[in-house]
Amino acid sequence: MSVAELFNPRSIALVGATDKSGWSVSTLANLREHGFPGPVHLVNPRGGMVHGSPAYRSLAEIPEPVDLAYVMVPTAAVLGVLRDGAKLGIRSYVVLTAGFGESGEEGARMEAEIAAFAAEHELTILGPNGNGYINAAAGITPYGLPIQKPLLRGAVGVVLQSGALASSVLAFAQARNLGVSLLTSMGNETVVSVTDVVDYLVGDPATKVIALFLESIRNPAEFSRVARRALEAGKPIVALKIGRSKLASHTAQAHTGALVGDDDVIDAALRQLGVIRVRSLEDLIITAGLLASTGPLPGRRIGVVTPSGGASEIIADRAEDEGLELPPFAPETVARLREIVPAFGTVQNPLDVTGYVLIDRTLLGRALEVVTADPGIDVVMLLSEPPRVEPADPAPTFALYSASAQRIAASPVPVVVVSNVLTDVTAFGRRVQQETGYPYIAGGIEHGLHAIGAAVRWSETRTRLLSRSPAVSPAVPAQVPGGARGVWAEHRAAALLASAGLPVVPSELVRDEDAAVAAARRFGYPVVLKVAAEGLGHKSDIGGVRLGLGGDEDVRQAYRSLAGAVPAMEGVLVQPQRGGGIELLVGIVRDPAWGLTLAVGLGGVWVEVLRDAALRVLPVDAAEVRTALSELRGAALLKGVRGGEPADLDAVADVVARVAAFAETLGDGLESLEINPLLVTGSHVEALDALVTWTPDIS
Amino acid sequence: MSVAELFNPRSIALVGATDKSGWSVSTLANLREHGFPGPVHLVNPRGGMVHGSPAYRSLAEIPEPVDLAYVMVPTAAVLGVLRDGAKLGIRSYVVLTAGFGESGEEGARMEAEIAAFAAEHELTILGPNGNGYINAAAGITPYGLPIQKPLLRGAVGVVLQSGALASSVLAFAQARNLGVSLLTSMGNETVVSVTDVVDYLVGDPATKVIALFLESIRNPAEFSRVARRALEAGKPIVALKIGRSKLASHTAQAHTGALVGDDDVIDAALRQLGVIRVRSLEDLIITAGLLASTGPLPGRRIGVVTPSGGASEIIADRAEDEGLELPPFAPETVARLREIVPAFGTVQNPLDVTGYVLIDRTLLGRALEVVTADPGIDVVMLLSEPPRVEPADPAPTFALYSASAQRIAASPVPVVVVSNVLTDVTAFGRRVQQETGYPYIAGGIEHGLHAIGAAVRWSETRTRLLSRSPAVSPAVPAQVPGGARGVWAEHRAAALLASAGLPVVPSELVRDEDAAVAAARRFGYPVVLKVAAEGLGHKSDIGGVRLGLGGDEDVRQAYRSLAGAVPAMEGVLVQPQRGGGIELLVGIVRDPAWGLTLAVGLGGVWVEVLRDAALRVLPVDAAEVRTALSELRGAALLKGVRGGEPADLDAVADVVARVAAFAETLGDGLESLEINPLLVTGSHVEALDALVTWTPDIS
Repeated sequence: MSVAELFNPRSIALVGATDKSGWSVSTLANLREHGFPGPVHLVNPRGGMVHGSPAYRSLAEIPEPVDLAYVMVPTAAVLGVLRDGAKLGIRSYVVLTAGFGESGEEGARMEAEIAAFAAEHELTILGPNGNGYINAAAGITPYGLPIQKPLLRGAVGVVLQSGALASSVLAFAQARNLGVSLLTSMGNETVVSVTDVVDYLVGDPATKVIALFLESIRNPAEFSRVARRALEAGKPIVALKIGRSKLASHTAQAHTGALVGDDDVIDAALRQLGVIRVRSLEDLIITAGLLASTGPLPGRRIGVVTPSGGASEIIADRAEDEGLELPPFAPETVARLREIVPAFGTVQNPLDVTGYVLIDRTLLGRALEVVTADPGIDVVMLLSEPPRVEPADPAPTFALYSASAQRIAASPVPVVVVSNVLTDVTAFGRRVQQETGYPYIAGGIEHGLHAIGAAVRWSETRTRLLSRSPAVSPAVPAQVPGGARGVWAEHRAAALLASAGLPVVPSELVRDEDAAVAAARRFGYPVVLKVAAEGLGHKSDIGGVRLGLGGDEDVRQAYRSLAGAVPAMEGVLVQPQRGGGIELLVGIVRDPAWGLTLAVGLGGVWVEVLRDAALRVLPVDAAEVRTALSELRGAALLKGVRGGEPADLDAVADVVARVAAFAETLGDGLESLEINPLLVTGSHVEALDALVTWTPDIS
Repeated sequence: MSVAELFNPRSIALVGATDKSGWSVSTLANLREHGFPGPVHLVNPRGGMVHGSPAYRSLAEIPEPVDLAYVMVPTAAVLGVLRDGAKLGIRSYVVLTAGFGESGEEGARMEAEIAAFAAEHELTILGPNGNGYINAAAGITPYGLPIQKPLLRGAVGVVLQSGALASSVLAFAQARNLGVSLLTSMGNETVVSVTDVVDYLVGDPATKVIALFLESIRNPAEFSRVARRALEAGKPIVALKIGRSKLASHTAQAHTGALVGDDDVIDAALRQLGVIRVRSLEDLIITAGLLASTGPLPGRRIGVVTPSGGASEIIADRAEDEGLELPPFAPETVARLREIVPAFGTVQNPLDVTGYVLIDRTLLGRALEVVTADPGIDVVMLLSEPPRVEPADPAPTFALYSASAQRIAASPVPVVVVSNVLTDVTAFGRRVQQETGYPYIAGGIEHGLHAIGAAVRWSETRTRLLSRSPAVSPAVPAQVPGGARGVWAEHRAAALLASAGLPVVPSELVRDEDAAVAAARRFGYPVVLKVAAEGLGHKSDIGGVRLGLGGDEDVRQAYRSLAGAVPAMEGVLVQPQRGGGIELLVGIVRDPAWGLTLAVGLGGVWVEVLRDAALRVLPVDAAEVRTALSELRGAALLKGVRGGEPADLDAVADVVARVAAFAETLGDGLESLEINPLLVTGSHVEALDALVTWTPDIS
């Protein structure tokens, strides 16, 4: 399979071309009108004239070599076309035809045949059930829906798991005067997958940013690999991943399960991979366009230059939402700006140079130049509209934008241009941008500031992720007995953790009163007694826990009340009772797609009522766990409130990371591992209770 | 003052008209090109030709009556123009000239002169420092910046506390093919205020929805009055109120103060008034446009009809964000849809009629008709793009949109049309909409769903607010002693509450050990001892509280340790110790603009760490307090967790509403009143501690 060949054919055959099909009409028109330099052959089994040109009856009749076949024949005929093509040495295909896996069993069978044939003959197939692609960089457009003119060439590669949205996304990019390098409508991904295309785009010199519309991430491991490659190449991936509303829990057994929806895991995974997740198609394209224009942004201290007080305040609000800083200007900047801004204006960040720009149109540009030189500013945001309507004499407009473009190009820090509102860049606006070299304009303060925030976060994440070697699981010896299955309640789960050197509260399993008292005395009072029984999840729910036992008689009474409380009871656990400290929940649960995931949160109502947990896909290192802890809404509690001792976050993170690493050694049979609570008293960290669930099918 | 006259002049004079001013050029061009039917007179002290016409030297020279003077003279000359005009009986003015209050002391002095002169002579003045207005409904456009053609007449009234943004807002509305009734750029609001204009728009038959851009709400009482009027008239107010990022606390003394930022109060007030608050200019206009098109929406059960699976899933995600429901279709709807949707499609809500729409363009319309008839659907959302480019033969396009328009008009439930992405409605799209009667298209799924959510919430809020008579303060006798000032600690604050019949834990103020023991015995053990001293805020911070005293000796020891703990100690409070229950914080604090505000939240870490409090501007009734309690993130705790008794929310709301009503009787001297905690045990509600702060200047 060669995706590069797929996207760069020198000759194309349209198989199933017919005047009756809008797809056929559009595909040929696209190839002819958007610059494909090579021959386009039409194939129709009936021959004759199609789209005003003679058609071949089969691929075999074409007298020249064909690099790509664009296939629009009926579903049942597709395999035959591939067979013909393979014989002729045609290696690349776009299959527009639908009726495969998406339409039922018979279709799925035919799709499997195609997959097998493609694998056998090393064919590269985009689709089926996809509209094809637009390689704008090379002017190659085998794409089944009309492409509005002008097709703008640019640095954003767009990959969509949707046919219908592709045209909307392209239209929106055009309206932003934003060019694409490649746009693909994936279809069923029978052969070529999203990750294959992303992999290609990472290596494609025409592409600087990758924009994805994702319905599902089919192969998380492969997605992770290409995301890492993109990060290393400095090519941001911006993704609109849908399906947020489907919150599914993985397992009812562990608390962790109820905390973790599918989408929460995807969200955590994307963040860990440095993928920018957005909520709307507008943010997808505007953010990608901004990053294609500026590259990484060096920091979150933004200097803002505007011609409007009202806009400045919207910007201040939105900047705070995005976690951006608008620091005061340096004294020398203030002094220089005072010479430029009219006396009735106020020199501050965000800067409003005032409506006097209508009289002195150079005002904004001169202020911009001063702010870009401020030593405390990482990025400058310039509020400026593209011109909409061509004036009678356009020369001053061109001169103005040209001067601004030069100032922006000469700026020592990145300058991001944002307009007030999201309206189309008109044909005249496009012309001015093109002819003056004026940069990309993020459409509207709302989406523009989202894009700046996302770009800053991506830049920071990239630095952090690339500086950190991937977490390595330490060589903790796996203590998994053969036949591990079902639920391991505390006594076995704790022993498993302790065997790996993890800090667990000491305990003894006893089977009579005297042994309970002897154990209690060894630990010292007060103690706790708990029912120990295989398969028992939450002991306290069935009254299986006795707390605060202060003496022998308390222990005896408690033992008697617990004895026989549940069937298959193995005995009673005696533990010293711990007090004070901060209780955490540490849960590790296997996500069917992403594998083991860690949820860490504050215990009690924090997880039960607020669902306040931070998630990570494993592996994680201690630094990542510290970051996760800082994301909790109740994070301030870890610093100690109401006179409580602050938690030693390094000690907590170390234990949690070791638990996570240990879980990774337990094999595919591990469904979940939960410590609840993990008690933290200063730098003393200790598991007070644990539960391990194994998948039923491991024996 | 007559705002109606201001906005409906039959003749206009441009005073200070000159070829050198862009404002002058634009204002005249606007009046000439956008349909002003009356005479426009130019006034320039030098006379001569201006803009190609002869100019008068003064208002007095104009031989006809002038209804409105548009004033562009230098700052110092404005008052003279008003004097001239007043003599001539000109009652309405737009003052574009800047340099008044916004530019310093001298300007403020001149502005005050103008205000006084206007009051004396009953002049209606818009501005100064504003660009004027656009009365699109009547074709009257005394507005100082260029107005792009076509100026669209419509039902949205726009009022902006910003000059620079007015043109962007107008351009954005035009790009949405959304007409305005009136647009005003307020300027300094020396005479005519935002609320005056809103008041006018509420009564204006051309206006259905009011869109506001607000930097500040200068007169909350007046704003509340006009908002209520708008609500009663069924005219939604949509507001972008900026300044969210400036979180200021009102007082450091009470916890409540730290909880309440200025913007939190504004947010609460706007919600209580039924004003839809939005975050962006795009949402402002798109939401206003949607409401102008649909009016109130009858419910939150949305049926969605789309030609795209990808879009359907974005919609499902965003609908959940907005609290909208996408219920399953009724069986008869499903049956009818199965006859329409191709076999390979799935019939569900949201409905994807599939890309087969490209072949059968009637598919979407027929599916729409079926879904609008579903008995379980309140509103139908139709995903549809306006056409962008005129095809060679536009007739089928017109026919298609015309058929859809008829279906939408005939629908028994409101149909909201939303496009995939936010791009301009092109000239051709506008023509198709106008000629076929196709309704407003909300621009893009992202903003469209926000608008639907806002419209549904507004409709619900309106029903709720109109059905509820404004809360009336009960006739609780105010027990405010003369000379109330400073901080009243618990013993005086609690007595004040108790005097009003509010439930307060019993207590005795004692001044020796024996009295403490006697009091403790009367209450029964365990008891609590607390320092009682005037001006003392949080007693526990200085160790002034002793809990869990179980017997006489404990009480004696505790008394001795507290005695003399602080200067000016008045004694020690003895109280029975309460246990269990749920602790609430009830704070009432005076906002400088909005007056007394109520903050209610769960005690302890909930307010301290999470700042989880619900706010209301007083007055509130018990129903409103119940709603406030339901908004808490920790609301589930009130239902009882971990076996705790559920709180009787009616009992809690009753007490809190009575506390609020009592606070309103305490006069302007009340700065804050805080009960922390208010202990709730089932239906038993009792204040355990209280603090009242009076403003220093009350004596």
